[in-house]
Amino acid sequence: MAETKLKIGIVGGSGYTGGELLRVLLQHPNAEIVAVTSRQYKGKNVAKVHPNLRGATNIKFIEPQDLPKVDVLFTGLPHGTVMDQVEHFTSQAERVLDLSSDFRLKSPEDYVTWYKHEHTKQEFLKDFVYGMPELHREEIKDAKWVAVPGCTATSAILPLKPLVDNFKISTVIVDAKVGSSAGGASYNLSTHHPERSGVVRSFKPTGHRHTAEMIQELGLPTEAINFSPHAVELIRGILATCHVFIEGDYDEKDVWQAYLGAYKDEPFIRMIKERGGIYRFPEPKLVAGTNLCDIGFEKDERTGRLVVMAAIDNLMKGAAGQAVQCFNVMHGLEETTGLNSLGFHPY
Amino acid sequence: MAETKLKIGIVGGSGYTGGELLRVLLQHPNAEIVAVTSRQYKGKNVAKVHPNLRGATNIKFIEPQDLPKVDVLFTGLPHGTVMDQVEHFTSQAERVLDLSSDFRLKSPEDYVTWYKHEHTKQEFLKDFVYGMPELHREEIKDAKWVAVPGCTATSAILPLKPLVDNFKISTVIVDAKVGSSAGGASYNLSTHHPERSGVVRSFKPTGHRHTAEMIQELGLPTEAINFSPHAVELIRGILATCHVFIEGDYDEKDVWQAYLGAYKDEPFIRMIKERGGIYRFPEPKLVAGTNLCDIGFEKDERTGRLVVMAAIDNLMKGAAGQAVQCFNVMHGLEETTGLNSLGFHPY
Amino acid sequence: MAETKLKIGIVGGSGYTGGELLRVLLQHPNAEIVAVTSRQYKGKNVAKVHPNLRGATNIKFIEPQDLPKVDVLFTGLPHGTVMDQVEHFTSQAERVLDLSSDFRLKSPEDYVTWYKHEHTKQEFLKDFVYGMPELHREEIKDAKWVAVPGCTATSAILPLKPLVDNFKISTVIVDAKVGSSAGGASYNLSTHHPERSGVVRSFKPTGHRHTAEMIQELGLPTEAINFSPHAVELIRGILATCHVFIEGDYDEKDVWQAYLGAYKDEPFIRMIKERGGIYRFPEPKLVAGTNLCDIGFEKDERTGRLVVMAAIDNLMKGAAGQAVQCFNVMHGLEETTGLNSLGFHPY
Amino acid sequence: MAETKLKIGIVGGSGYTGGELLRVLLQHPNAEIVAVTSRQYKGKNVAKVHPNLRGATNIKFIEPQDLPKVDVLFTGLPHGTVMDQVEHFTSQAERVLDLSSDFRLKSPEDYVTWYKHEHTKQEFLKDFVYGMPELHREEIKDAKWVAVPGCTATSAILPLKPLVDNFKISTVIVDAKVGSSAGGASYNLSTHHPERSGVVRSFKPTGHRHTAEMIQELGLPTEAINFSPHAVELIRGILATCHVFIEGDYDEKDVWQAYLGAYKDEPFIRMIKERGGIYRFPEPKLVAGTNLCDIGFEKDERTGRLVVMAAIDNLMKGAAGQAVQCFNVMHGLEETTGLNSLGFHPY
Repeated sequence: MAETKLKIGIVGGSGYTGGELLRVLLQHPNAEIVAVTSRQYKGKNVAKVHPNLRGATNIKFIEPQDLPKVDVLFTGLPHGTVMDQVEHFTSQAERVLDLSSDFRLKSPEDYVTWYKHEHTKQEFLKDFVYGMPELHREEIKDAKWVAVPGCTATSAILPLKPLVDNFKISTVIVDAKVGSSAGGASYNLSTHHPERSGVVRSFKPTGHRHTAEMIQELGLPTEAINFSPHAVELIRGILATCHVFIEGDYDEKDVWQAYLGAYKDEPFIRMIKERGGIYRFPEPKLVAGTNLCDIGFEKDERTGRLVVMAAIDNLMKGAAGQAVQCFNVMHGLEETTGLNSLGFHPY
Repeated sequence: MAETKLKIGIVGGSGYTGGELLRVLLQHPNAEIVAVTSRQYKGKNVAKVHPNLRGATNIKFIEPQDLPKVDVLFTGLPHGTVMDQVEHFTSQAERVLDLSSDFRLKSPEDYVTWYKHEHTKQEFLKDFVYGMPELHREEIKDAKWVAVPGCTATSAILPLKPLVDNFKISTVIVDAKVGSSAGGASYNLSTHHPERSGVVRSFKPTGHRHTAEMIQELGLPTEAINFSPHAVELIRGILATCHVFIEGDYDEKDVWQAYLGAYKDEPFIRMIKERGGIYRFPEPKLVAGTNLCDIGFEKDERTGRLVVMAAIDNLMKGAAGQAVQCFNVMHGLEETTGLNSLGFHPY
Repeated sequence: MAETKLKIGIVGGSGYTGGELLRVLLQHPNAEIVAVTSRQYKGKNVAKVHPNLRGATNIKFIEPQDLPKVDVLFTGLPHGTVMDQVEHFTSQAERVLDLSSDFRLKSPEDYVTWYKHEHTKQEFLKDFVYGMPELHREEIKDAKWVAVPGCTATSAILPLKPLVDNFKISTVIVDAKVGSSAGGASYNLSTHHPERSGVVRSFKPTGHRHTAEMIQELGLPTEAINFSPHAVELIRGILATCHVFIEGDYDEKDVWQAYLGAYKDEPFIRMIKERGGIYRFPEPKLVAGTNLCDIGFEKDERTGRLVVMAAIDNLMKGAAGQAVQCFNVMHGLEETTGLNSLGFHPY
Repeated sequence: MAETKLKIGIVGGSGYTGGELLRVLLQHPNAEIVAVTSRQYKGKNVAKVHPNLRGATNIKFIEPQDLPKVDVLFTGLPHGTVMDQVEHFTSQAERVLDLSSDFRLKSPEDYVTWYKHEHTKQEFLKDFVYGMPELHREEIKDAKWVAVPGCTATSAILPLKPLVDNFKISTVIVDAKVGSSAGGASYNLSTHHPERSGVVRSFKPTGHRHTAEMIQELGLPTEAINFSPHAVELIRGILATCHVFIEGDYDEKDVWQAYLGAYKDEPFIRMIKERGGIYRFPEPKLVAGTNLCDIGFEKDERTGRLVVMAAIDNLMKGAAGQAVQCFNVMHGLEETTGLNSLGFHPY
């Protein structure tokens, strides 16, 4: 299938996720980007907004209403706005990958609980597959529509799922440290450089919406999952430190077994646990620009707690990269196509 | 007592803690620094090592063996080295404040457990008071010798103690985010700028030595306390996010009561919990350069977890500032003397 | 005069300069802040906007029209808006220190050239003194109205003036590296953290307005002065690298003489030129939070060029600190009053 | 030639330049890395030192004496050490690309002047080609040995050469802002995070060794070239601000013509000069990870000065990337092979 070029549209192409989709897909051998929408920047070259694309493309933003028929549509609009146009989007494309949160949760009640509004297109929910290949690869292969997971949800679900599947877990605390690009390209006082640079800021100690995805995908009792994200000085990247309380005895070998059983053939998951050196556990810097999820762990022999660390690039495995991974799965392409460039060091 | 000047010696004055002691004490109305030791820099002006002191002093480093008799001695040597010389130090000064970890733990066995070596001067342990005025003010008033707490221990004990005293706590996870100055002035690969800048690094997921102080001071069962520090991009500061599991019902008002009861008259503790705005919880940037400990909290109504956030400057409330606070208490001075300058914004 | 408290008003107190004025004046023994205006935040405690002031004051913002009579008024409004209200401001206060650019230039034509608008209150220009005590101390002593210099102008004029006075200078290039707080508290895309963090950005290679102040104060031919500021990753601080071309022979001793002659008794100027070590030249980090201007230099023996480096904190010596220095001079106070706290290391 | 795989050796593979060579060449279709040396890390997987390579290779460091015969050898040792072994290196490989400074200067006297030592292998100097394809492509095609330019030299020579060729230039001041990776992987006090983070440090105001390369390649009188590098908060990247004084009249169109004439077909040079927006001039962030050199300019109409800004990634176009570009040229490969991945935004 190496020679097929699928026609791609990107709705909402001026944000950071849209920019990453452009970067990745422009270098993808099976993708031909034919339309990128942005109300604000219509008529402008995409490189005007995404300066890293200068010289690499002449694509110009078009208005959403001018979106042509495409093979595959990536929608990168703010949450709550994709559902309003989902009939249109699904009619314009064979396949749709939605990077908003509008179709991630299976239960419409969860939208009321976590997003504080009714879901207006509940009939679509059952046909959107949660786009995390490590958990739903077979469904994604057959899916027409994929809901790409949230970034912090990805950073928590990937390290926790094999544990949930292999141990009895009483409580999990996910304490995440998040880069500023996770907040998107819109600016406000909290993103103003003198206010944001150098912070360690607990911006949502409880009630973060991505918690709903963790609850849904992990299948633990809701009260077992606790999530607190923090803004730290970083542009790209998330480190999720998961403090896991396991019932009964276990040792580190059992944990290794759980991860190997789940992930030994996964192309984007690396287990990072070395005896020494400064890189012995996962770090966001080491996966920046890649679709990798690095996972490491250490058992606290004194208390029995298991500390699991997972690092991703929020714009890649946490958004555009995972979307393209799903795109590859959906089209029978090698799963790493367009996603195999190495990370940087130092970065 | 405003006119008395106490003669001060600082042993180990070339590190960051020594530098902060110099900065604070040079501006302290009741302190006269008469000796500062450093083997490596003997004969050099202290400003050669601490360039912020240029023009402010002509004190030169002397060798440790030339230490004269003083009223008060601050010892800022690496752990394990103060105990060897404790007879000498206590004979040279009326009062000693030790910023190392050598006399913080009451039980000699704890040194074996946490520091992996015998304590060679166990007879001194009972007379060193743990130098946290909020918990031990009366003892400090009468103390000749004070063991100044560790920085991350301070960031955890201060927010947790009122909770322990007012609630039944089953488990606590302290997930701390720490600036690079906490590692001291010695350099190695992990502190090399290209390797350290922008990291979110779990450098000691379990077994950090400061945990021992938390266990001792909080009085919870050892297995109830879990601690994981992370290096983040920051020079000064710690944010300790404490995930607290409380048995039985409680609401945020109860938590408020616990903190007010404990801290309403404390000069260096501020409760930070606002309804809106970007500064509604504690942040290290907002206490940098001060001796403050900012504490905030939010209850996770879904799971019952209490999230408590505490921010300190690791070199101030986490080291030199707390030492001077103890010094003030020991000498009947106003507790804020020399410690009341305001923080910066933006910083 | 230690006991006199002058009644102070601050117009435009919600910006970073206003915040620094508050921080410094709240700790100033001869100042009593009686009014701080902000349209946007009226009725709110100043600490809501300047969180470093929490617990230090209960002053609330008032609307500009409610400004009472005061002894001294500091005006921190955007350029172009002070001139409109200058009669009002000068009628409400014995003395006015304006931190905007509205009265810095003596020639009304310069406003047209550099600010692209007419000066509407030209009759006031002659009575505003340029508020740089190192150059205009005697005039400031007698002044009712002071125009506080621009931040990058300060960083260039202070290191260059003694050279202009002692050498024949053909050309100067001032290449400045500037922190983000110099742009103020208003946010836009260029200050959005993911866009601003880590930049080295030439945001105004030619034509920066502060050049006009350099030309005026240095008295060199206009074409001899070249200025290019750069945004770098830093919140507070400016390093001005001045590449100076001197006609005729000279050596470093001559340069030393020029600086000593001009500045040996200046309380806020430090000459920084050491033989070795990592702090041998000025750095913004080492003056952050202070009113200092550090100056160093090195002659390029190969080409004859003199490289002069000057470091200031843009919010202090570049704005609020210099304003308070002028305030001290105007009122016969010790010039360092309220401005003598030491810098930090590390910072 | 797409299927040929050249056997590659890397001497000195544990530094940052060696790591970048590995990253780029592991992804290069015509390269097969067969040997990487490091005394310190012999026997260890290269990913132990370069954690970005985890999972991508199993190559282990070998000792330098075990270096096999290869087609192409890249030498990344400290300056002064390659010349000692140059016979050995040139005997082991068909072609050698040296990333040290040992063979960049044509005149042996220049080594005495700038490096303060005799050149011990002067007979090799004439056969090493200065490896900047934009200036020496034809020579590189035929070269056996290439001396890869210095990073700051590259950032200055590329923007200045077309100006030198088209205008009469009286004086140039290159004021460079440099990331910490340019200092290499060795640590010391100046690279210790608390001391290096957030600095704006003039570490070598005059006399930087890369000046010699600028003088040699530009062909201007030595006293016309002035260079001052500054360390700023950044890991990868250089912005060279070149203040250029041109004799006689000129306008911006003439400058455009000069650049277009020289560089319009250059694959790695982009002219960046937009009317508006925040990315209107070159910035290091926008070329990080790429082999690009972005160049922009603005004429100061008031003084006649031309301000030219050039941005590169010091490890790529400033070292490993340029080396691979030369490698491509030497072997008749498409010049962008292995070097065409897009930059990141945000970064």
